Amino acid sequence: MKKFEEKTLHTKSIFQGNMISLQVDDVQLPNGKTSKRELVKHPGAVAVLPITKEGKIVMVEQYRKPLERSLVEIPAGKLEPGEEPKQTAMRELEEETGYTTDDLQFVTSFATSPGFADEVIHLYVATNIELAENKLDGDEDEFVELIELTLNEAEQYEQDERIWDAKTAYAVLYARAKGLLE
Amino acid sequence: MKKFEEKTLHTKSIFQGNMISLQVDDVQLPNGKTSKRELVKHPGAVAVLPITKEGKIVMVEQYRKPLERSLVEIPAGKLEPGEEPKQTAMRELEEETGYTTDDLQFVTSFATSPGFADEVIHLYVATNIELAENKLDGDEDEFVELIELTLNEAEQYEQDERIWDAKTAYAVLYARAKGLLE
Repeated sequence: MKKFEEKTLHTKSIFQGNMISLQVDDVQLPNGKTSKRELVKHPGAVAVLPITKEGKIVMVEQYRKPLERSLVEIPAGKLEPGEEPKQTAMRELEEETGYTTDDLQFVTSFATSPGFADEVIHLYVATNIELAENKLDGDEDEFVELIELTLNEAEQYEQDERIWDAKTAYAVLYARAKGLLE
Repeated sequence: MKKFEEKTLHTKSIFQGNMISLQVDDVQLPNGKTSKRELVKHPGAVAVLPITKEGKIVMVEQYRKPLERSLVEIPAGKLEPGEEPKQTAMRELEEETGYTTDDLQFVTSFATSPGFADEVIHLYVATNIELAENKLDGDEDEFVELIELTLNEAEQYEQDERIWDAKTAYAVLYARAKGLLE
């Protein structure tokens, strides 16, 4: 897994933010030449595909400032220090949707933008979900609206680009391929 | 598509790089409060799922500095100014793999990390691919190795996390769901 390794010669920290940080590394390439790499550091995240007992997918609509538009996505959130991904998934599901479950199954993990960022998303499927009696409060600057969609509706949302992000596109295709909502 | 819009009050440019730039926006939230958003700007990218006449997927292994490891991915590359995504897809396919085709079909687009970046990837499927007689040269600091995988092998690579990025995971699942390699 180190094929064509680019050895770090020097790291320059550019920015330390609340969600991400940025650094520029001078690297030595396999041919001995040097180059620069712009690297965004992110704590990683989880995403949950929640399926109701009626066979619908629970999604959230929220504004995504980088894209200057709102998107309909499966619930997700970033890892907190010391938190196991599965624990984050349970917490984010409840904070964003009010649903809880004991049935959370790991699906897969993937890097979202390996060319410039280290963000990895861990995807889970949540079944047998139930509305919590006392909903956890989410971040106070997070505004989300719940939407429950059949699989056909979710695919239509993709056609219309209301669903337009990688993790949700993967989750919807996964639900179709595995027959999860049939 | 502007639900819960976060109005920009002020933009502070932090970094302008070769691949990405970074800014921090002060925003007004729907409840009137203010917050900060850390935003990575990226030109966007294309990815191509190339299928050989023998029914294999052509992939490239390359080192991904943000993750400090190499990954096996479908060919991809960022949009150049003024270039149509389909044109970029044709060019990147040839530069990275040596294959060309006239049969490039659009599959879907998705944002990779909508929480902090504006990167959108446009995914295509390439069929009837042939090795070009005079291969285009790629970026001089890009080191890639070609790998041709059956669909079963690609799924095993995912299990082993040698394939570990969102666009490739989506493409492999898409190939399976649509029966593209049968």
